[in-house]
Amino acid sequence: MNTHTLDLDSAVIATRAEVAELHAELVRYGLVAWTGGNISGRVPGHELMVIKPSGVSYDNLTPENMILCTLDGVVVAGTLGSENSPSSDTAAHAYVYRNMPEVGGVVHTHSTYAVAWAARGEPIPCVITAMADEFGGDVPIGPFAIIGDDSIGKGIVETLTGHRSRAVLMQNHGPFTIGRDASDAVKAAVMLEDVARTVHVARSGGELVSIPQDRIDSLFHRYQHVYGQH
Amino acid sequence: MNTHTLDLDSAVIATRAEVAELHAELVRYGLVAWTGGNISGRVPGHELMVIKPSGVSYDNLTPENMILCTLDGVVVAGTLGSENSPSSDTAAHAYVYRNMPEVGGVVHTHSTYAVAWAARGEPIPCVITAMADEFGGDVPIGPFAIIGDDSIGKGIVETLTGHRSRAVLMQNHGPFTIGRDASDAVKAAVMLEDVARTVHVARSGGELVSIPQDRIDSLFHRYQHVYGQH
Amino acid sequence: MNTHTLDLDSAVIATRAEVAELHAELVRYGLVAWTGGNISGRVPGHELMVIKPSGVSYDNLTPENMILCTLDGVVVAGTLGSENSPSSDTAAHAYVYRNMPEVGGVVHTHSTYAVAWAARGEPIPCVITAMADEFGGDVPIGPFAIIGDDSIGKGIVETLTGHRSRAVLMQNHGPFTIGRDASDAVKAAVMLEDVARTVHVARSGGELVSIPQDRIDSLFHRYQHVYGQH
Amino acid sequence: MNTHTLDLDSAVIATRAEVAELHAELVRYGLVAWTGGNISGRVPGHELMVIKPSGVSYDNLTPENMILCTLDGVVVAGTLGSENSPSSDTAAHAYVYRNMPEVGGVVHTHSTYAVAWAARGEPIPCVITAMADEFGGDVPIGPFAIIGDDSIGKGIVETLTGHRSRAVLMQNHGPFTIGRDASDAVKAAVMLEDVARTVHVARSGGELVSIPQDRIDSLFHRYQHVYGQH
Repeated sequence: MNTHTLDLDSAVIATRAEVAELHAELVRYGLVAWTGGNISGRVPGHELMVIKPSGVSYDNLTPENMILCTLDGVVVAGTLGSENSPSSDTAAHAYVYRNMPEVGGVVHTHSTYAVAWAARGEPIPCVITAMADEFGGDVPIGPFAIIGDDSIGKGIVETLTGHRSRAVLMQNHGPFTIGRDASDAVKAAVMLEDVARTVHVARSGGELVSIPQDRIDSLFHRYQHVYGQH
Repeated sequence: MNTHTLDLDSAVIATRAEVAELHAELVRYGLVAWTGGNISGRVPGHELMVIKPSGVSYDNLTPENMILCTLDGVVVAGTLGSENSPSSDTAAHAYVYRNMPEVGGVVHTHSTYAVAWAARGEPIPCVITAMADEFGGDVPIGPFAIIGDDSIGKGIVETLTGHRSRAVLMQNHGPFTIGRDASDAVKAAVMLEDVARTVHVARSGGELVSIPQDRIDSLFHRYQHVYGQH
Repeated sequence: MNTHTLDLDSAVIATRAEVAELHAELVRYGLVAWTGGNISGRVPGHELMVIKPSGVSYDNLTPENMILCTLDGVVVAGTLGSENSPSSDTAAHAYVYRNMPEVGGVVHTHSTYAVAWAARGEPIPCVITAMADEFGGDVPIGPFAIIGDDSIGKGIVETLTGHRSRAVLMQNHGPFTIGRDASDAVKAAVMLEDVARTVHVARSGGELVSIPQDRIDSLFHRYQHVYGQH
Repeated sequence: MNTHTLDLDSAVIATRAEVAELHAELVRYGLVAWTGGNISGRVPGHELMVIKPSGVSYDNLTPENMILCTLDGVVVAGTLGSENSPSSDTAAHAYVYRNMPEVGGVVHTHSTYAVAWAARGEPIPCVITAMADEFGGDVPIGPFAIIGDDSIGKGIVETLTGHRSRAVLMQNHGPFTIGRDASDAVKAAVMLEDVARTVHVARSGGELVSIPQDRIDSLFHRYQHVYGQH
């Protein structure tokens, strides 16, 4: 399939539109500043992903300037937007898609309260029912890793594989969230900052009441299987 | 009365419109994230309530997709919106309407500061006059209870029956507020988060000055009876 | 002059418009919730003031529903808006106008950080130059006083008379600010919350550096006399 | 070149437009209150700068009311906007342009968290990778200095000359940021408040994990030279 055909492929078109539009949620919930943060989505039926371009204002994101990449993080030459650079976090997103086939969306932000836990290297304890619902327990810390090779992607995959949480706080860096599609990963990013802030505020006022493990388990089970809306 | 008739009933139409529109206040005051939170209203003259559908974006709430339920929390088949599921907190709202006949509206959110007090299982002390006006004293903590039976509804009713406060902080979960109608319950949710945040900030800076009980009493009395605008 | 003539008086018309419009600034800066907070303005050339009606949504404030009162806080019968009740804080505003002839505007809010200092009965220390500019030193605490007589008005006047600060934090209640006109009092309310928040955050992180008194004096002097824009 | 010609010069026109428009970013990111804060830009090819007028509402800033000044901070008589006073911080901006030829833009705000660090006279420690990227290490404190002579400008220049950081926190006062152009300085102001808030929140929750100096160095190097988008 040549690149011209890719731009006409309905799965690519739909993923471009979804990924572009979802970036507005990061702005709406105050998770990003300036051009920071990025969302990607796997293109169903292809070994491809769509991701935000680097250094473009949130006001100017469109389906057409989203960037189509292989799952090795290489821009597909000749497609829409390919004249720009993809997000500098592209390698990390690509690593996740290659190693976690069930993941259809990845989000990265530097949202304030999530980064605050990451700067202390401290998991967020599960003391509110919304956290049990959404993350099934504590939100874990991933290793310190810097851009330049696959160490960020590896850290995400090693931390989240087999974990209930769809969110990891990369130490001194910030959160990555995953989901069955891009929207689900964005929801996880929004809810993560919400619980990161709430638990921070709660603990700053005194001692937290813990939730028994069996209650966390049953809340998580219901939310995933009965409610079916995570 | 058949369900078609219900969709034409002016009390049902008015309650749908009021409940749908009030959800915008939860967004305006930053009390909710993603599809979390819910408002219900009792339908005057019927053993019915109107509540938010489950998992629908706040951008897409309309009078037509609000869900009409009996006071047992059962969707009234064949009415507008009945193809969707009602809020997963419907049983708790319904329990309140069945057991507190003076209540015409119920609101549930996971607003940050209210949940923070709930995660410590700590009532909010009444140290500001706005709290004396609105809640008549401390905002109480309700029991830990999880979804699945009537335990949340029971916890709300047992805590608020005979209490001045229209708000309860369900432990490790979050606030439920009640009111004579849905708007009054939304006002209580807005003011609750406001005082939860203010008292949190106040105490984090040092020792609070308490308000003598007789002053709390006279502020509450004036606000309820003289001012008449709660 | 009869009341019909008052509604045609250009000073009354201008004050109604100014006071109505300024309320939007309280919303813009997040100083108020629901229908709380109020602004008044003295009508130049008359023994009259214009104030917000009680219990009306900020979305619905117009020049026509502002309420014209005497400086005893009595609604001028037959004028626009006089069918509604004036703000329940009208007596306090009126007391200020009667006793501080240089004051042309009064603002009251329950803004979060200002109320937090008030709940501890603690003046805000002047540790940032913006505070020296605007308030000339610490922002003082006024007495505990509740609605029902002139005690709130008296507390404001006794605290602010001869004081550099245009803001007072009434203990356990919240801020009142004054100005040469309504806009100036609104500016003081906005800047007060800004410095109340900043100094709270600053002190929560460690020890503050004080500013020498002579520097505070020279900053205040320049801002009032050279800059001329307070 | 006479002043009429200056108003027709394309470099002046472009700088007026850029500086006027960028002020909206200070509002968008909540960095300013009322008429506080200011942005300036050097006019390429001239010994001139464009700066915000004093005391004008952010709603009313236009290219035409921006003020054209020499690099001594003197308004160029007869040009657009010259009937108004330039920002009271003009002397500080001008001093920076005279002494740091590589600087094309300067921003000053009283943003909450940056001022909080300044009120303690405490540099912001570099514990998050975004800070290493953007500022290359700690954000430094500048001396206490008040308006009236060149002491603020001198303090900025002495602190930032040879420093990686494009931001300085003037003690008890607030941040000044510089950039290769006005947009770059605004980005620095936005990112500064973001990291000032995040590190404040992080430390208020417990002990921070430091980042090894060589990792800070390599992050900064990549961001400036490889990424090329600071």
